[in-house]
Amino acid sequence: MPVGTAGTVKGIRFEELESPDLNAQIILGNTYHLWLRPGIDVIKAAGGLHRFIGWNRALLTDSGGFQVWSLGALRKITEEGTEFRSHVDGSLKFLSPEVSVEVQAALGSDIVMVFDECAPGKATHEETERSMELTTRWAKRSKATFDRLQLEGADTGQIQTSNGLSGRQALFGIVQGAGHFDLRRRSLEQTVEIGFDGYAIGGLSVGEEKSVMFEVIDDLALRMPRDCPRYLMGVGTPEDLIEAVARGVDMFDCVLPTRNGRTGQAFTSRGKLNIKNAQWVKDSRPLDESCNCSVCRRHSRSYLRHLYMSGEMLASILLTHHNLAFFLDTMRRVRQSIRSGVFPKFRREFTERLDANGE
Amino acid sequence: MPVGTAGTVKGIRFEELESPDLNAQIILGNTYHLWLRPGIDVIKAAGGLHRFIGWNRALLTDSGGFQVWSLGALRKITEEGTEFRSHVDGSLKFLSPEVSVEVQAALGSDIVMVFDECAPGKATHEETERSMELTTRWAKRSKATFDRLQLEGADTGQIQTSNGLSGRQALFGIVQGAGHFDLRRRSLEQTVEIGFDGYAIGGLSVGEEKSVMFEVIDDLALRMPRDCPRYLMGVGTPEDLIEAVARGVDMFDCVLPTRNGRTGQAFTSRGKLNIKNAQWVKDSRPLDESCNCSVCRRHSRSYLRHLYMSGEMLASILLTHHNLAFFLDTMRRVRQSIRSGVFPKFRREFTERLDANGE
Repeated sequence: MPVGTAGTVKGIRFEELESPDLNAQIILGNTYHLWLRPGIDVIKAAGGLHRFIGWNRALLTDSGGFQVWSLGALRKITEEGTEFRSHVDGSLKFLSPEVSVEVQAALGSDIVMVFDECAPGKATHEETERSMELTTRWAKRSKATFDRLQLEGADTGQIQTSNGLSGRQALFGIVQGAGHFDLRRRSLEQTVEIGFDGYAIGGLSVGEEKSVMFEVIDDLALRMPRDCPRYLMGVGTPEDLIEAVARGVDMFDCVLPTRNGRTGQAFTSRGKLNIKNAQWVKDSRPLDESCNCSVCRRHSRSYLRHLYMSGEMLASILLTHHNLAFFLDTMRRVRQSIRSGVFPKFRREFTERLDANGE
Repeated sequence: MPVGTAGTVKGIRFEELESPDLNAQIILGNTYHLWLRPGIDVIKAAGGLHRFIGWNRALLTDSGGFQVWSLGALRKITEEGTEFRSHVDGSLKFLSPEVSVEVQAALGSDIVMVFDECAPGKATHEETERSMELTTRWAKRSKATFDRLQLEGADTGQIQTSNGLSGRQALFGIVQGAGHFDLRRRSLEQTVEIGFDGYAIGGLSVGEEKSVMFEVIDDLALRMPRDCPRYLMGVGTPEDLIEAVARGVDMFDCVLPTRNGRTGQAFTSRGKLNIKNAQWVKDSRPLDESCNCSVCRRHSRSYLRHLYMSGEMLASILLTHHNLAFFLDTMRRVRQSIRSGVFPKFRREFTERLDANGE
């Protein structure tokens, strides 16, 4: 899922997200950011987030839990919820499971996430246990609020029908527990017991060693319900996606393709390419000779480097487009290879090529 | 003509410039900027400016005269040419009629401009006369260099054939003389005597009163050769374009639609609209209810205001698109109304509506 924090996937138009190059079926919006700006009353007045931003395909909203957790010293966590200061105007705000799910209902997102607490990557067993148990209690409160709102038929925007979902919107639970396997397993059991439409693995890619991340996924993913989507939050590089898929994960969101695009880094089938490098000054080749996106069909590394060095906005626009095209195309090829029963071969070849760029 | 200073019309992809919304037939590139960065060797290596930037339609390049003139204290003008310091790396550079036309030949632009000197809007008659006579001498040298290069068949990029042009590229002369009618007329006579494929009016919109600009055009435009394009450089607002067309002008370039788009100003059929204004916070209407561009078909003022207030790049992208669509559509309608013999009616109605936005 491309990340559309403030109601826009940075640097790219919705027409491009819908184009065959990208064909994104779902994007992510951030409850925390949208709640603070423009505010829920503005989005409600437009008839929900889909209508406000002009996007008719699916939307997932996170709960704001991770964002307020990231504020560090600026927030105070209690049993009730999290008090924090807005990064926009410094005002005191309060997010709880009830508030988060109510806001996400007003946004009308297709997939709602429970409000969770995230333990630091290197938290002790005791700290992690306390945090994980809080997440479970918050998950129950998130679910209760969600069920009440769905029952009341709160106007949740675009969705008219649901098939096998718990409501007109879908609600996903989040498994926490940092790098502690026993806590991860207990978190999973408790979360599944509450019952959700899908299950996410949260609290990875937050400072722990990458080997820890894969060990957790190794231990956890195949224990997750087979008939529900498994979503690894905030991950990752193309090789991370492939490795997580190999371990049983279905869904991802990550800012890497967009954020790195804006800082001049392209992801290609032969690894990362830094467009600032002087070696591209007269290089007439596209970013990725194996890529068929509109940027690679039209523009050279030489031109893209010139745009970047001149501080031109078009550099960000074009690199973002290519990076999203590469990520989404990679995931399309992953799905095809799974359907054709050749994923192991695809995984091996894909990974081998990634090391070939010579950077 | 949308302005593509550094080989990009800021904030918009070439695919959009080619789309039915905009359908720009020609864009402008700046010799000064491209010469300094990425440098002519880079553009030559790509096979000219068209190939370097990936644009197959027409390109006009200015001569750099106006840009180095704008440097003020940073440049020294002599009979030979202009010495100045690069704004990119501070190095000492020299532009002359010969250098400018050679650079433009290497760029392979479809329309080359002579290297001129621009008198300030409020220059005395004596100052203006000296400057204007220098421009005439430089025009002769520009033409001589141009003829030699065209004869040598210098590789000028995309153009394969020419119909009635002085070479494979076209060369336009520039009429100077500030607000002094006698000098403007003498400049025109001298420029026409040298003989060019088109004629531009330079040195307007540089600080003089707007009434002076229209008096000069009033006096000058209809004296310009009937069978050659008349190009008013660096102008202007939608109403300026209509008024200049009414006085006989054919071509324009201006940064207003792109630059003002980046600072939150939209041009609409009912006048200017500042997207920052609080009155649009929940306004579900498009920027311009009479506009059929992809931005107006999809996005509300409320959403565009949110993007702008959040510092999102997409605000610039979408406002730039709409503004260019509005300018190019206005000029298309001007041409249609002239062909249908109803331009005076179009001019009256267009101007009346512009005052209606209530800002």
